[in-house]
Amino acid sequence: MPSTHSWLSIPADSDFSLFNLPIGVFHTGDQRPRAGMAIGNHIVDLAAAAEAGLFGKRRFFVKIFTQATLNGFIALGKPVTNRVRKKVQDWLSLPQKPENASNILVERGKATMLMPIQVPNYTDFYSSIEHATNVGKMFRPDNPLLPNWRWIPVGYHGRASSIVVSGTPIRRPKGQILPPGGAPDTPVYAASRQLDFELEVAFVIGKESALGEPIPVEKAEEYIYGLVLFNDWSARDIQRWEYVPLGPFLGKNFGSSISPWIVPLEALKPHRVKGPKQTPAPLEYLKTKGAKNCDIALEVTVKTQGQDKETLICRSNTKYLYWSMAQQLAHHTVNGCNVQVGDLLASGTISGPTPDSYGSLLELSWGGKNPLNMADGSTRTFLQDGDTLTIRGWAGENGAKIGFGEVSGAVLPAL
Amino acid sequence: MPSTHSWLSIPADSDFSLFNLPIGVFHTGDQRPRAGMAIGNHIVDLAAAAEAGLFGKRRFFVKIFTQATLNGFIALGKPVTNRVRKKVQDWLSLPQKPENASNILVERGKATMLMPIQVPNYTDFYSSIEHATNVGKMFRPDNPLLPNWRWIPVGYHGRASSIVVSGTPIRRPKGQILPPGGAPDTPVYAASRQLDFELEVAFVIGKESALGEPIPVEKAEEYIYGLVLFNDWSARDIQRWEYVPLGPFLGKNFGSSISPWIVPLEALKPHRVKGPKQTPAPLEYLKTKGAKNCDIALEVTVKTQGQDKETLICRSNTKYLYWSMAQQLAHHTVNGCNVQVGDLLASGTISGPTPDSYGSLLELSWGGKNPLNMADGSTRTFLQDGDTLTIRGWAGENGAKIGFGEVSGAVLPAL
Repeated sequence: MPSTHSWLSIPADSDFSLFNLPIGVFHTGDQRPRAGMAIGNHIVDLAAAAEAGLFGKRRFFVKIFTQATLNGFIALGKPVTNRVRKKVQDWLSLPQKPENASNILVERGKATMLMPIQVPNYTDFYSSIEHATNVGKMFRPDNPLLPNWRWIPVGYHGRASSIVVSGTPIRRPKGQILPPGGAPDTPVYAASRQLDFELEVAFVIGKESALGEPIPVEKAEEYIYGLVLFNDWSARDIQRWEYVPLGPFLGKNFGSSISPWIVPLEALKPHRVKGPKQTPAPLEYLKTKGAKNCDIALEVTVKTQGQDKETLICRSNTKYLYWSMAQQLAHHTVNGCNVQVGDLLASGTISGPTPDSYGSLLELSWGGKNPLNMADGSTRTFLQDGDTLTIRGWAGENGAKIGFGEVSGAVLPAL
Repeated sequence: MPSTHSWLSIPADSDFSLFNLPIGVFHTGDQRPRAGMAIGNHIVDLAAAAEAGLFGKRRFFVKIFTQATLNGFIALGKPVTNRVRKKVQDWLSLPQKPENASNILVERGKATMLMPIQVPNYTDFYSSIEHATNVGKMFRPDNPLLPNWRWIPVGYHGRASSIVVSGTPIRRPKGQILPPGGAPDTPVYAASRQLDFELEVAFVIGKESALGEPIPVEKAEEYIYGLVLFNDWSARDIQRWEYVPLGPFLGKNFGSSISPWIVPLEALKPHRVKGPKQTPAPLEYLKTKGAKNCDIALEVTVKTQGQDKETLICRSNTKYLYWSMAQQLAHHTVNGCNVQVGDLLASGTISGPTPDSYGSLLELSWGGKNPLNMADGSTRTFLQDGDTLTIRGWAGENGAKIGFGEVSGAVLPAL
C-alpha cells in the first residue's frame, strides 16, 4: 500500500479513502463518458490520467478508458486492473501536488455517474438464511425453510436489460394481482400495491469461464472483479401470484438498481471475515477455508416526497450471509454454465438476526402488519409514489473507509 | 412476391424455398464470418451481394453483413430487413442466371454455420397446456395445472451465455441430485442421469422497447423479427431438487441450442392460424384477434452413438401452443420490463394432445416408466452419452416450404 497521506484533501469520513479507489463511468455534462476512480470529493479521470501517461501505453489506455462501460478494462485481468489502481494510489500519494492534478481531477459534485458495466447475465441468489426463513414464514407458513436451502446456494436468473444505475427513477409496475378476498383465482390487472426494495450486494465477474468447465470453489475469487450495492425492487403482489412453479418474473424484472462505483475485491482484503457456521456441512464442491465473507455495514433509508430528512429503516451487514460469493459462483458453474465479464451475481436480500436488520419492507413490516414510522409522521408498509429509497454500505473506519457510496431511486407513479 | 421460378435449381423438398430466405451467419473455412440467406442447397452470401451493389449503399451493407452477429442488421428495422429479403428474392427470380451468381452463391455443404445473434436476454415460457399438465402430473400429482396457468403466460428468465448454435456438443452436467430412496433430503454430487431435451421454438426481438413502457398486445408482432428452433436441454434430477421456490436454474443453464437460420416472421404470413380457445377469457391486456399462432410442423429424432439411422420420437406443431407470441411479449413487458434487439423468447416445450406429440423425454417416457425403442434395438428413458438429438421444423408444402432446417446436438459424457 502507498503512504496513507495524500496531497489531496480527503474528508476523514469519506467512503472513498486512499485505500478504496472504486471505479465507475461518468461524464461532466459533455456527454463524453469516461472511466474514473473516486477519491474523497473528487474523481480521478482515468482517460485524462492515461493521456498524461500515468499507466504507460498511452493510446491503449486512453481507448480503454473512453469506452461507455468498463467491461473492456475489467477483462484485462487483475494484474492489469490492480496495477492501474496502484498507479493511481501512488500518484495520489506523491510528496506534493503534481502539476497535472488539475487536468486529471474532477469534482465529484460536477459529475454524472453512468451505468458502469454492460451486464451480459444477471443472477440473483437467496443466500441469507434469515431472509429465506422470514419470507418462507409468510409465503409458506407450514414450510418456511425448504429442504434444499441448507444444501444449495439457491439462485435464479434475473433480467439484465432492466438494471439501471443509482439515481434512475423506477416506475411502479402494473400487472396481474390476485386481490385478497376476491373470487378464488380471479386476478385483476392493476398497479402494484406492494412495491418493495431488497437490500443486496452484487459481484461483478472479471474473467470469463468456458462453457462446460466448472469453476472450483477455491479459485472462484479469481473470477470476481469487485462489488456494488444492489436494490432488487420487487412487487410482492405480482410476485405472489406468478411465482409458482417457475420463480419470480414480472414481480422483479421491471427494474434493479446498482451503485455506480465498483469496489474492487482487492480493496476489501482487510475486511474479510468468516461466514456463519454451515450445518449440515456443504458437499465437497462447496467446501471453503478461511474468511470468505465481507464485513460491509449496510443501511437503508426512505425519504418521502417533499421531505429532506431520510428515515433509517434498516441496518444490516454482508457478514450475515450464509452462502459466500465463492460458493455461489462454484455452484453456478458446477454444471458447466459459463460466466462472462460484466455478469452480475447478486446476494439476495441481506437480512440480519434482529427485526431492525431485515432487508425488505416485506420483512420489516411483516407482510404489512407492522407499519414503519417515517420522519414526516406518515407510515409505510410498502413504498409509496414519490418515496426515495437509498442503500449505503461501507467497510472500515474513518480515514480508511472502503465505501460504496449509495444506490438510490425514487418511485414514479404507475402509467 | 416474386416469380415462383428461379434460375437456380432448388430441390422441391428443400426447407429453403424462394418464399423462405431465412438469415444466418456462416464462414467457409476462412474464419471470416458473414451473413447469408439460405436458398435450396446454397447460401446467398449477403456480404458479397452487398459488395456487388445489390442493396445500394455498398459500404454500409458490406459492413453490416460482415459483423459476427446479425444484431446490427436486425436493428435496422423491418422496412430495411424486408427490402433486403425482397432484393434477394428478385435476384434469384431473374429471367436468367446473372453473371455475378458465382461470386454471390456459396454451396451450403461448404459452409459452417455460426451463432446468428448475440443474445442480450433469454426468456423461456411454459405455453403448452399439454406440457404444463403432463409435467404437473409428474412433479405435483395433486395439483397438475396450477391456478395461475390459464391467466398468465408463465415464464422465467433463462441463461443467455450458454445458448449455442446447432452442432455444438452438450456436456452432461453434474450437480446436486437427491437420490431416489436415499436418506431424506441428503443430496449427492453426481452426473445427471435424467438428461432430457425440450422441443421449443423461440422468437428473436427485432426492435427495442423502453424501460417502463409496456408493448401492447396488438403491436407485439412489430417487435418480432423471426423464429428459430430451440432445444432447452434439461437435467430433470438436478431440476427437481433445486427448483422450489425460485424456479429452474442449474437444471437448465448448462446449455440451450438454436437452429442457425432465423426465419423472418414475414415469411410465415401464409401459415398463421388461430390458437386454441382460451378459457377463461384472458385479461384485456392479453386479448388478441385473428390468427396469432403459426402452423409449423415439428419432429424430433434421436441418433444413438455409432448409428446412421435416426429414430423419430415425436411429431408436434406450434399450433398447439395455448399462449401466442404476441401474448407472451405483451405479458413480459406489461410491468415495464424492456426488450432488446436479439433477445430470445422461447415457447416452452411444445407438446400436442397425443402421447406421440409430447415434446420431452420426461413426457414421452412418462417419467422413465415407458422406455422408447431406438432403431438400434436399444431403449431410452433419458438421453445417453453419444446420443444426438435433432429437432426439425417447417411450414408449408414442397416447393414452397418455409423450413427451419434443424437444431442438433450430441451428448458428451460428464467430465
